Amino acid sequence: MTSNQQQTIASLGAGLLTGQICVVDCSSILGPSTTLQHFGAQSGGQQPAVEIHKISEYDEDGPFFAWNWLKVGEHAGTHFDAPHTAESGRQHPDGSTETVDPQKLIAPACVIDVSQKCAEQPGCLLDVSDVEAWEASNGPIPSGCWFLMRSGLDARSVASGDDRHPGPTADCIRYLIEKDIVGFGSDCLSTDASDADQMEPPYPAHHLLHAANRFGLASLENLERLPVTGAIFIAAPLKLCNGTGSPIRAMALVPA
Amino acid sequence: MTSNQQQTIASLGAGLLTGQICVVDCSSILGPSTTLQHFGAQSGGQQPAVEIHKISEYDEDGPFFAWNWLKVGEHAGTHFDAPHTAESGRQHPDGSTETVDPQKLIAPACVIDVSQKCAEQPGCLLDVSDVEAWEASNGPIPSGCWFLMRSGLDARSVASGDDRHPGPTADCIRYLIEKDIVGFGSDCLSTDASDADQMEPPYPAHHLLHAANRFGLASLENLERLPVTGAIFIAAPLKLCNGTGSPIRAMALVPA
Repeated sequence: MTSNQQQTIASLGAGLLTGQICVVDCSSILGPSTTLQHFGAQSGGQQPAVEIHKISEYDEDGPFFAWNWLKVGEHAGTHFDAPHTAESGRQHPDGSTETVDPQKLIAPACVIDVSQKCAEQPGCLLDVSDVEAWEASNGPIPSGCWFLMRSGLDARSVASGDDRHPGPTADCIRYLIEKDIVGFGSDCLSTDASDADQMEPPYPAHHLLHAANRFGLASLENLERLPVTGAIFIAAPLKLCNGTGSPIRAMALVPA
Repeated sequence: MTSNQQQTIASLGAGLLTGQICVVDCSSILGPSTTLQHFGAQSGGQQPAVEIHKISEYDEDGPFFAWNWLKVGEHAGTHFDAPHTAESGRQHPDGSTETVDPQKLIAPACVIDVSQKCAEQPGCLLDVSDVEAWEASNGPIPSGCWFLMRSGLDARSVASGDDRHPGPTADCIRYLIEKDIVGFGSDCLSTDASDADQMEPPYPAHHLLHAANRFGLASLENLERLPVTGAIFIAAPLKLCNGTGSPIRAMALVPA
């Protein structure tokens, strides 16, 4: 007898193969020109630029194969923040990329679009009132979901040279944790706003999310292609030994 | 009105949150002790061992954060082979990790268990007759699926020190391409058998799969936790600039 779960997975498979369920690529290209998140020297320092080094390329180093090795930060480009990246989250036994529960990584997504507010005021913050307004329109935030902020600044900051970007207030992150989100994601370079070292606590998204064993996602792309609710988000870090984070190929499943 | 696709995605979300649909982790830990695939010097050379270097660890280099940078091969540990890794696949415009169609990466899985044959004869090969026997029991191989070989040797080779491992014959790969698989995966270090440099053509899985713009997966884990059919496999490479492959967090969705 076919169970409901078997039926759901069969329908998913058929939808993927026919294109009626669409895989949206939410990652940016990872390479030497990837713009990187960094912290002040007194907070956490700087990761190196991404490097790609040839091993062989159908040549005298290996005629059959092309392949490379990489120098890459755990938090380079579109990436996942594991709880262990923050001092506040270091105590969680399942808080590294190696130990995180995979079941949590694939979950429904809620998308909040603050691109208009951000276009008017690049240094703005995501506050509780924004989330409450979202809930008034879209209903309660489901326990276990990814909560994703679309600032629209991924494209704009490159064009304008203004690299300020928004992030959540401490109260907003506390509110989302109360709603039991699995993690908070952003299309900006970091889950935290560009001025978050001046906030209380400093870097509230990192500090509070990871203290509560929740995850972060940054440098997401194509969030405008996701419905406000009704997408499944897939954000799986490499299984790095004691990893504090990982570049990821973030993807979403949406109805075509 | 709710479409069938919306309903499928909603059921998937509910199943994931309740655990009735289970996320199976099919990746091994990636770090300095990861065993690496290599090729002879005349074929493609050797990738470096994985290195993990500290940037800060809640210390004088950065009190709030821990993070690292990595030296890692595109084909290290559990990984994805893009068509561009083989000379035979270099002409495909959508054949790099950057250009591959994400829609192809999440697809139904067929799992063939040859662990008994491999336990008796570690140097054995997967042949057309094995696939035909699988089809006789399980029905036709669906177009667009991942075809995954479980040798059971991932664990055994570590225990015994015998690092020979199986792979498909050239005819077997030709047969699977005729069935229109999206890619072939293995729990061994490479999609090709350990003696594949002696086969005709050399490295038939790499040569033939990638010539046909299909993908490879290697060093998969936990394939014994997948049903023979009825799982959805997720195998998404990092969006590496001109990448020939990528370490991945391979995962499968299965009914609990």
